[in-house]
Amino acid sequence: RAMEIFVLFRLEKTLSAGVISSSIGKTSLIHLTVWKTCISIIVYRLPWTWKCSKLLMKFIHAGLNTTAMILAIISIVAVFDFHNASNIPNMYSLHSWIGLTAVIFYCLQLFLGFAVFLLPFAPVHLRAALMPIHVYSGLTIFATVIATALMGITEKLIFALKNPAYSASPPEATLVNCLGLLLVIFGSLILWMASRPHWKRPPEDNTKILSPIGATPEGTEVESTMTNTSNADKSDLRSNTEAARKQNIKFDEAGQRSTM
Amino acid sequence: RAMEIFVLFRLEKTLSAGVISSSIGKTSLIHLTVWKTCISIIVYRLPWTWKCSKLLMKFIHAGLNTTAMILAIISIVAVFDFHNASNIPNMYSLHSWIGLTAVIFYCLQLFLGFAVFLLPFAPVHLRAALMPIHVYSGLTIFATVIATALMGITEKLIFALKNPAYSASPPEATLVNCLGLLLVIFGSLILWMASRPHWKRPPEDNTKILSPIGATPEGTEVESTMTNTSNADKSDLRSNTEAARKQNIKFDEAGQRSTM
Repeated sequence: RAMEIFVLFRLEKTLSAGVISSSIGKTSLIHLTVWKTCISIIVYRLPWTWKCSKLLMKFIHAGLNTTAMILAIISIVAVFDFHNASNIPNMYSLHSWIGLTAVIFYCLQLFLGFAVFLLPFAPVHLRAALMPIHVYSGLTIFATVIATALMGITEKLIFALKNPAYSASPPEATLVNCLGLLLVIFGSLILWMASRPHWKRPPEDNTKILSPIGATPEGTEVESTMTNTSNADKSDLRSNTEAARKQNIKFDEAGQRSTM
Repeated sequence: RAMEIFVLFRLEKTLSAGVISSSIGKTSLIHLTVWKTCISIIVYRLPWTWKCSKLLMKFIHAGLNTTAMILAIISIVAVFDFHNASNIPNMYSLHSWIGLTAVIFYCLQLFLGFAVFLLPFAPVHLRAALMPIHVYSGLTIFATVIATALMGITEKLIFALKNPAYSASPPEATLVNCLGLLLVIFGSLILWMASRPHWKRPPEDNTKILSPIGATPEGTEVESTMTNTSNADKSDLRSNTEAARKQNIKFDEAGQRSTM
């Protein structure tokens, strides 16, 4: 897993370096946004974080997404400013339409997630009902953002490369095509990590794992913000996280076949 | 569900009509391909098919994907011919790179799926191990194909609209942008249907559902091609499919939280 994170990190560095040099500041901001979003998606999937309290992880997840949202909004404002300064019409391309839609849904997702999963007011059954929707829409927005980035790269290459043109395959075109392909691989890896049941964080309370299968594990999951202000202190007492993880895998293998 | 299928059908009709009129024959072939792939993805998720034998459904799944692959290959040959006839270089764009990669992985997926899940030679543990990978890569290839289509639409709009240009937002640009946005919504719906546990086909053999949770439901799933040549005849005997589905939902809700 450490190697995978390292590979992802290297990949992202390569991508950032390449795209920053080939485009304006907007792209680097968008890039930071995608990067933060990735981290926040897989933040529950890093086994070395399983000993941290659930509330801390939620704060990291929410914090990364909040900064990513701020960066996304700054980027969009920068694009409008750039377009206005260069007399380019705004919001005419499919890239802009889908990009703006994705950002709007991203904001909705963030506010809804904050209200339901972070604030301690939502009842357990509402959290349980909304969690699959939250996961689905998070991953769908992520995939849409990757698709938007690919459309943006395509547009940029067509508009920016004039002599020689994009169709003459100058070295820049080949380089940026490779980066686009890496972006797809990178997105696929994140979706893989996010959809594997055995990389799922084990439920907070170990004793509940041993209760009958009829008692939904969601209960422990969705209750955690309500209870783990005290769990944060207890986290170092739990040395059997690995055992919990193995138990969790066994449960998942039994109950969960269509894992995507 | 019937309404959803109807909506998907209407959506696809609209998309086809729009895109065919705005581009060459290739696009319509690609469109048929995407359409067939969609159907084949959700073919196990249509409750009215749960009374059909698993083997029949597998043949439909494999058959639709095979015709889709043939159409995809014809489309690619058509593009090369068109490029050669018009003196446009081949394989220079990110659209073509990612598109060809997706088609290659699609072929691999099809051959591997055929060898492992349709032919009766692969052992049960291999089928169980490969099923989550098959599901993940199928959905990832599907998402990549949608992204490729969006890049293709972007390219086409930039190249085809000259007077007035794409940036002047002529009616064609707005129409095709809307179709692109519908394509994203359409893809999201398919991913939603494919990832909901309660739309999952119940295991073939109802008696096994009542066995302890420790006995993996995968067993019944992966064994089905080996056993259901006889099940095909038995299918009309099973009138309690609805009960099986409900049972299945209950199991899923207990064991499966991260449903994406």
